[in-house]
Amino acid sequence: MVDIATRVWNHKWKIDPIVRSLIDTDFYKLLMCQSVFRNHPTKQVTFSLINRTSAIRLAELVDEGELREQLDHIRSLSLTRGESTWLRGNTFYGKRQMFTPEFMDWFEGFRLPPYHLEKRDGQYDLTFEGNWPEVMLWEIPALAVLMELRGRAVLRDMGRFELQVLYARAMTKLWEKVQMLRPLDGLKVADFGTRRRHSFLWQDWAVQAMYEGLGSAFTGTSNCLIAKNRDLEAIGTNAHEMPMIYAALAEDDAALARAPYDVLSDWHEEHDGNLRIILPDTYGTEGFLRRAPDWLAGWTGIRIDSGDPAEGAEIAIRWWRSRGEDPRDKLVIFSDGLDAAKIVELHAQFLGRVKVSFGWGTMLTNDFRGLAPNEALAPFSLVCKAVSAEGHPTVKLSDNPRKAMGPESEIERYKRVFGVGEQVEREVVV
Amino acid sequence: MVDIATRVWNHKWKIDPIVRSLIDTDFYKLLMCQSVFRNHPTKQVTFSLINRTSAIRLAELVDEGELREQLDHIRSLSLTRGESTWLRGNTFYGKRQMFTPEFMDWFEGFRLPPYHLEKRDGQYDLTFEGNWPEVMLWEIPALAVLMELRGRAVLRDMGRFELQVLYARAMTKLWEKVQMLRPLDGLKVADFGTRRRHSFLWQDWAVQAMYEGLGSAFTGTSNCLIAKNRDLEAIGTNAHEMPMIYAALAEDDAALARAPYDVLSDWHEEHDGNLRIILPDTYGTEGFLRRAPDWLAGWTGIRIDSGDPAEGAEIAIRWWRSRGEDPRDKLVIFSDGLDAAKIVELHAQFLGRVKVSFGWGTMLTNDFRGLAPNEALAPFSLVCKAVSAEGHPTVKLSDNPRKAMGPESEIERYKRVFGVGEQVEREVVV
Repeated sequence: MVDIATRVWNHKWKIDPIVRSLIDTDFYKLLMCQSVFRNHPTKQVTFSLINRTSAIRLAELVDEGELREQLDHIRSLSLTRGESTWLRGNTFYGKRQMFTPEFMDWFEGFRLPPYHLEKRDGQYDLTFEGNWPEVMLWEIPALAVLMELRGRAVLRDMGRFELQVLYARAMTKLWEKVQMLRPLDGLKVADFGTRRRHSFLWQDWAVQAMYEGLGSAFTGTSNCLIAKNRDLEAIGTNAHEMPMIYAALAEDDAALARAPYDVLSDWHEEHDGNLRIILPDTYGTEGFLRRAPDWLAGWTGIRIDSGDPAEGAEIAIRWWRSRGEDPRDKLVIFSDGLDAAKIVELHAQFLGRVKVSFGWGTMLTNDFRGLAPNEALAPFSLVCKAVSAEGHPTVKLSDNPRKAMGPESEIERYKRVFGVGEQVEREVVV
Repeated sequence: MVDIATRVWNHKWKIDPIVRSLIDTDFYKLLMCQSVFRNHPTKQVTFSLINRTSAIRLAELVDEGELREQLDHIRSLSLTRGESTWLRGNTFYGKRQMFTPEFMDWFEGFRLPPYHLEKRDGQYDLTFEGNWPEVMLWEIPALAVLMELRGRAVLRDMGRFELQVLYARAMTKLWEKVQMLRPLDGLKVADFGTRRRHSFLWQDWAVQAMYEGLGSAFTGTSNCLIAKNRDLEAIGTNAHEMPMIYAALAEDDAALARAPYDVLSDWHEEHDGNLRIILPDTYGTEGFLRRAPDWLAGWTGIRIDSGDPAEGAEIAIRWWRSRGEDPRDKLVIFSDGLDAAKIVELHAQFLGRVKVSFGWGTMLTNDFRGLAPNEALAPFSLVCKAVSAEGHPTVKLSDNPRKAMGPESEIERYKRVFGVGEQVEREVVV
């Protein structure tokens, strides 16, 4: 029996909003936001959408009016009482009051700042400018909206049963991955797939399927809203935007060389335990670890987010040993280009040598490869990055030159300052 | 938003009834029932459930109490006003008032007669005795109940997402078949899968998927309730129970030899056009056609339901030619052991030589092979047959000795009377 009120209510929506909550975002954005809010509340930054898969001409696929409606809707959102209660009252990584009363007061009054949207060469030029803690919160919803609108443009032409079979196939595909992972002893895997998910509902389904299929081996989700709704642990630490902006703000080469450690020094003051995770690859992992201060070797673990993951983990293991640490006490979080087979492989390779955990992203929440003609639903490499801070361009080198970002001359300067030599190119899947 | 009344209402059900309507049955049962109601309203017959897949020990899988509840529920059903209106007002095969006012008056007051249920050797001994037109209507609901209860026994232990993925896989499998059939020019295929369906909801889904995927190449469903609900054509003609019971009622060998033609003679009086379909295999196709009266060659077509289907069609083509008929004006309905690949093959082989149509059964509505451990959901060969009439055992020979039924001595007598020699054994899939 149809609930008439629900049906009438549903027909009153002017749009079907993709992002319906300010906490439909990655947990680490909020953690970083709090740190930025305390240390750099008024630094002017620019974030920009970058489609690394230029063959996908987003501005031709996605209607500008629809995109504006979705972005405007996001600007109308504010933190609900329940969301605020959850953030204030929850225990994250065993710690109460992870978010300070000052940050929460600010966040409760927060609305996302204006955006700038233009079409250029078949792509959307979408940028956000303003105070760092405000602008940074656009990243995840902007990506989610673009990804989902592109999917909707494809799904619009499909029949009812064709749609049902599409999702049936996607579910089957995901469940087969869950079954591949189920036998792994001591597996720890979390959902990191918010930014490039197929859709909110699909991510929500994927998270629940992982939970039913893997039980306690599924450690949680990076998505705060889903964590809240499904009573799961919210997972995450920090990201490249911190060293990239700290570096862009550096006054000279000496300050630049110090910048990545300054980030972690600020972080060290705020967090302990499982939140003390090094992200070493922004300007080359090898050099970063070689020059790292000793207190960093005492941190809980490392996140490997570019380059060959096994090689990255081996580098970390050698580094811990060189600093007198026992790698078996350390955590390695793999979070780049993962799929079930890769997880099985890395799990076998590092089991017993370090503590291992996986932050599984796009191939968990958007593996629609092979499910639509011409791969029209396959995920692609869309990012939303800090491109400048206080007028200075940001630079990212990473352990894969194809993921490098920034003006050529600045990239050369950074390579010199951070002693980065030849790098191996690796295909950027998503 | 949950419709509270619906939820409370749903929780008031004592059981989840499998068969909820007297017209959740095959259309040909109603056509035959009308013929029997007119010609043999008080003949005493016995129908019996026979599990030809003895390895599946139904009485160990299915709880007797649950089975009785379902059967008792079916006995509580009577024709609704809307169902009656649909049967009275509908056009079947272009004909109005297919069902006579006399038959409809009787059917409106009809309830299914008692059943007899015992356990024996791990199987259920389920029989129905009484007036032919009453007892015969047990066949389809009895089969559907047993099939679905066996499925439920397996599904009970599955998790929520495991269940969703199970159906996702089944949908994908079926959709791939639909896609195999879509390119076939001039295809005509109908759903004949009520009796051994996985479940009512699944058959309903399969029918809708076929309709969306194949459009007008999908000609309808044998299931009256689904035809009514989904505004489709109800499809079917007649079945083996007619010649089997006519034969069992024959007084001597001469009457026995005449019996299969008497059935069709009665049918000829009642129906024309697409309902004049010969089912020739009850006592061997070759002999049946050789001895057939000439008026039968004028019928619209033939249904091939056992033996090698291509061979059966070739026999029919040769027979029509020998009687001066043009096979291109004739309809061949294939209805035994079909799956998509077989349909593609037969369609190619007979396109342009005869009119071809497919009555697709179990592999359309119950292809859960490979979807549960130990093939616990794979379909199996359950039938519900007339086993005696007025105290005389019935006999079926068919074109496959593995489908033969009846006491050994009677089988020998029938073989002699109908001149059936050596037959090739073929595996009975479902």
